[in-house]
Amino acid sequence: MDAPLLKERERATFNVTELIHLLNGSEEETKRRKELESWLYNNPVFRQDDRYQISREEVYERGLQKTRELVNLCRRKNIKFDSLDFARLNISTLEELPFFLHVIMFIPTIRGQGTEEQKRKWLPLAEDLKILGTYAQTELGHGTFLRGLETKATYDVSSREFIVNSPTITSMKWWPGGLGKTCNYAVIAAQLYTKGKCYGIHMFIVQLRSLEDHKPLPGVTIGDIGNKYGFHTVDNGFLRLDNVRIPYENMLMRYAKACDYIPPVNPKINYGTMTSIRVDLVKDASVILAAASTIAIRYSAVRHQTEIRPGEEPPVLDYITQQFKLFPQIATAIAFHFAGDYMHRIYDKVQSEIFDGHLSAITELHGISAGLKAFTTDTSIAGVEICRRACGGHGYSNASGFQRFYENWLGSATYEGENTVMYLQAARYLFKCYDNPKEAPETMSYLRYPQNKMEWNVKSADDVSNYATLITAFEQRALSKISSTAKKLKNLTHYGMNRNDAWNAASVDILHSIKAHCHYFIVKNYMQSLNHLKMSSPLRQVMTAVALLYANYGIDEHAGDFLESGFMNGKQINLVRAKILQLLKEIRVNAVAIVDSFDFDDRFLRSALGAYDGNVYNRLFKWAKLSPLNKTEVHSSYKYLRRILQSKL
Amino acid sequence: MDAPLLKERERATFNVTELIHLLNGSEEETKRRKELESWLYNNPVFRQDDRYQISREEVYERGLQKTRELVNLCRRKNIKFDSLDFARLNISTLEELPFFLHVIMFIPTIRGQGTEEQKRKWLPLAEDLKILGTYAQTELGHGTFLRGLETKATYDVSSREFIVNSPTITSMKWWPGGLGKTCNYAVIAAQLYTKGKCYGIHMFIVQLRSLEDHKPLPGVTIGDIGNKYGFHTVDNGFLRLDNVRIPYENMLMRYAKACDYIPPVNPKINYGTMTSIRVDLVKDASVILAAASTIAIRYSAVRHQTEIRPGEEPPVLDYITQQFKLFPQIATAIAFHFAGDYMHRIYDKVQSEIFDGHLSAITELHGISAGLKAFTTDTSIAGVEICRRACGGHGYSNASGFQRFYENWLGSATYEGENTVMYLQAARYLFKCYDNPKEAPETMSYLRYPQNKMEWNVKSADDVSNYATLITAFEQRALSKISSTAKKLKNLTHYGMNRNDAWNAASVDILHSIKAHCHYFIVKNYMQSLNHLKMSSPLRQVMTAVALLYANYGIDEHAGDFLESGFMNGKQINLVRAKILQLLKEIRVNAVAIVDSFDFDDRFLRSALGAYDGNVYNRLFKWAKLSPLNKTEVHSSYKYLRRILQSKL
Repeated sequence: MDAPLLKERERATFNVTELIHLLNGSEEETKRRKELESWLYNNPVFRQDDRYQISREEVYERGLQKTRELVNLCRRKNIKFDSLDFARLNISTLEELPFFLHVIMFIPTIRGQGTEEQKRKWLPLAEDLKILGTYAQTELGHGTFLRGLETKATYDVSSREFIVNSPTITSMKWWPGGLGKTCNYAVIAAQLYTKGKCYGIHMFIVQLRSLEDHKPLPGVTIGDIGNKYGFHTVDNGFLRLDNVRIPYENMLMRYAKACDYIPPVNPKINYGTMTSIRVDLVKDASVILAAASTIAIRYSAVRHQTEIRPGEEPPVLDYITQQFKLFPQIATAIAFHFAGDYMHRIYDKVQSEIFDGHLSAITELHGISAGLKAFTTDTSIAGVEICRRACGGHGYSNASGFQRFYENWLGSATYEGENTVMYLQAARYLFKCYDNPKEAPETMSYLRYPQNKMEWNVKSADDVSNYATLITAFEQRALSKISSTAKKLKNLTHYGMNRNDAWNAASVDILHSIKAHCHYFIVKNYMQSLNHLKMSSPLRQVMTAVALLYANYGIDEHAGDFLESGFMNGKQINLVRAKILQLLKEIRVNAVAIVDSFDFDDRFLRSALGAYDGNVYNRLFKWAKLSPLNKTEVHSSYKYLRRILQSKL
Repeated sequence: MDAPLLKERERATFNVTELIHLLNGSEEETKRRKELESWLYNNPVFRQDDRYQISREEVYERGLQKTRELVNLCRRKNIKFDSLDFARLNISTLEELPFFLHVIMFIPTIRGQGTEEQKRKWLPLAEDLKILGTYAQTELGHGTFLRGLETKATYDVSSREFIVNSPTITSMKWWPGGLGKTCNYAVIAAQLYTKGKCYGIHMFIVQLRSLEDHKPLPGVTIGDIGNKYGFHTVDNGFLRLDNVRIPYENMLMRYAKACDYIPPVNPKINYGTMTSIRVDLVKDASVILAAASTIAIRYSAVRHQTEIRPGEEPPVLDYITQQFKLFPQIATAIAFHFAGDYMHRIYDKVQSEIFDGHLSAITELHGISAGLKAFTTDTSIAGVEICRRACGGHGYSNASGFQRFYENWLGSATYEGENTVMYLQAARYLFKCYDNPKEAPETMSYLRYPQNKMEWNVKSADDVSNYATLITAFEQRALSKISSTAKKLKNLTHYGMNRNDAWNAASVDILHSIKAHCHYFIVKNYMQSLNHLKMSSPLRQVMTAVALLYANYGIDEHAGDFLESGFMNGKQINLVRAKILQLLKEIRVNAVAIVDSFDFDDRFLRSALGAYDGNVYNRLFKWAKLSPLNKTEVHSSYKYLRRILQSKL
């Protein structure tokens, strides 16, 4: 152990193990997680670390090797794909594998939208990996706007078949993971045509490749779309279907029937699988940001750079600017952790309501998950980059470990729904509830009896340490944004603009409103979660400081919103800022212990800067020597250099 | 030409060619730039586009091939390394080449800091590429804080040699581009020891590899540091020197002598080369952001997604949220273009002053370039990512072209000085000038006679269209931040804190102050530049709208700063927001024409989304088919898949 981190750990005022168990749910869950991780990391395939050195084809091949090992592990240990254990393994692989969409979208879509008969037929095949499927919805010319999809499934009454067709180049399926080279099946989202009429998007099971030799079936044009920022291991694909015929039974018909068309009660039911992914993303945002802060905080405790006083180079974590960058990231990671817990609870509740035939809760779940998906992915992507840059030059090296998190996670701002569109969808629900407050769900209860307060009741530093006072601030900010935007919308339509154009004209304010609402929700849920949890008094003190930082930092960050309505004044903002400085100081002593409580395995972080022992520089040197360019003292490409140096160009 | 872009271009209200020449400086300069580009892109080596497909070693080898071709081109066309022509070629390669530090740092350092005799000896060798050098300053454990560097150059009087030594692992040189495998020489920054005394950092020319067989010389441990976010073509390296002896003449001694030590008049003179890079980065920030906006704007004019009114899918550029993301990026690119021009002018002025022996101007240049380097790189990095995400899912594909810009440019936030440190260095100068207003340079003239205004003189929409009124707003914001921070600093020291600790305690406010100052400078310089330039009335109208957007958007973005002092009120902020919406509408009609005026060659953008003809989807499909995974219908890695599908794990 390097001395600086040892010193940091000795100073901590709380018990790290207590916080580890609290964040994992219980001591048993911590233990199980660690057991799963050890199974995974003991396999050398999962310790391979050369994906930035090798060609794209080799990286993809590694993805399949890892898939095989992971499947093997699950069979040996009897881990089901829909279990919490598998979800944990999924995160711990730290790399997307070509068959993940099979597990997290193909199977769940059949399970959620298939009839009992369909499930009996397809689930055993899929769960035993006799077939490998993906979820093909997005098209080359059509993304988040699902009604715009062009792929058609036309019912042919005579043969009792659907003819699935991509009539144009823009109608090609594009992006689905595993589609290019791996999967032999897909759930295809297509416009259903029956008896000459279009009934909108429904889901169809289509075989794409031969189960004998894996060759594409007739009428199927399929391939890899090429490289991306991340997901190098995955063959995101394109797919063109030229009047491919599938049996009537291949339309997923739990909620709608094709022949004499019966529509689903709630059309959003078709996108249930996507909603479940959005729910998961909230928790993922917490994990990613926690990992990034772990690296940055540990390295900042080891790293010396510049002097505060002449002759003294303290660890950079002593710099207020560094604390101001990093401690809010810790706080955000914890805030999103509790938001993720909330989302999973509400998701399970809605699922069981759907199971009982109550489909109305879908709308609420859709609204909340869309908003929080956008808010948490946006914020955490920015946060990872703040952590990376806080590591200075070395943050730019692959040895920092950030790139693995960042490059995949960057996609979350656009996949499963582009974030601006997500915000606007969530906002439609928000403004609907504002107009009909009786319909407002629990998360929007402040809309039921909106109380516009004129002034914030803050006069001293103590006041900004009060949960209720802080929650009120975020509630008032959201209310003020929502009500002024609603007024604007009304004015625009009053003066003759149609409602759709008015929505567009006011959309910048609408975005502000929904972001303010999401922020309010996260703050409130965070503080309520802390109040409900049992913990020792030293731990509570630490967790309180972190939660107060989250809220006060949010106010400072968006000071304009709080000031413009006159609800807050400049003096109060200065009290908030003074409080932030005080909290930074309070958190400083426990910063390393807090990130230790996130309890990441070094083999997960893969960071020379953020390893538990803090042995930064030796590890950087050791890893550098592994660069393939260092295999020889003079690289074979010297042949070009020699010609340049000898002027023989 | 795809119809949507044709339509956009027909609607433009100004002459694109006029703006192209204005941004290039003149018609001749436009022509020359295009000629250089055509020479470059006509060479197939510079059109190779597979760096995300091949291994790291192959990518590096490509870098050397390109180096050879570029050198060849320069020889044939008689282009000198220190010419504007070379700088243009440098940008147009769109890839860092392993010998760029030789050209932009090694040679300039010798030219700037060598004696006449040293220049006579080394420059011909370096310019003819008989030797290849890099600039080795940063160490494994020491970055922006140069005084902390550990490498020692100890003068041995008896042999008239320096003994250059890296005593510890943290003292290894780390990061210099081309150091690992390419260069055979380096300028090394080391602590000079003469007669037992340390005289701080000076620069030494050290040979690293044999000119015969390129093998590392005795005492030299050298290699590649491994992969990074970007700069894949470059062998950033590590270097350990074990008591390597170099002749006395190898210390660069234009400003300081080693034996009986004579210090330089201004110690910052040693870092002149770095300052020149920082100056260049301001202009680069403009280019990168202009390229990113070109891609995003063109694609947004082609792309349809979601309906504003039912049944109509307009181009996404009609969405206010999209305009609100993208048009400020155009405005910022142009603002930074003029800031870059300013920086080059002042840099040339200071260089000629230094040449005449007046070294005092270095401090000002250092302060301004540090602040603007941080401000423009931070802003443009964020802007590129805004543009990328505004392209939805396809922005995540390599075919979008963003990754090439982003991954290299991301480094600019930390290289040549980490941005927070840069801001704080610039702030030291700012607060020094605030305390001694007579010393304030032209860029800080508002500190000479600071006028704290109580209220903003804005009552109507017209008022926020006035350059002077807007400049005043930014001036007052900066003044208010600076003066309140200065007061805070004074209070802290008054109550007994030492000045260094006070600086740290107030550093969050200090950062705000210097950012506000930089923002003010950019706004003012932008508007003054427009006033000084000759242009037709239609063009002036467009350029005015863009400049007004830049300023009003900046106020909205930082509303809290303008509101908290009471200088602005909520009503005025709403006038600003209304103005922004009006400007977005005004710019909408010319958006495509404006980015056309940035005049990027398609072979520079390498973007399926942003090519001039707007033929987005066909190009995406064409490029996808080139993925190496598509060489066969069934990829060779099917061997793993078959075992999974047949349960033979």
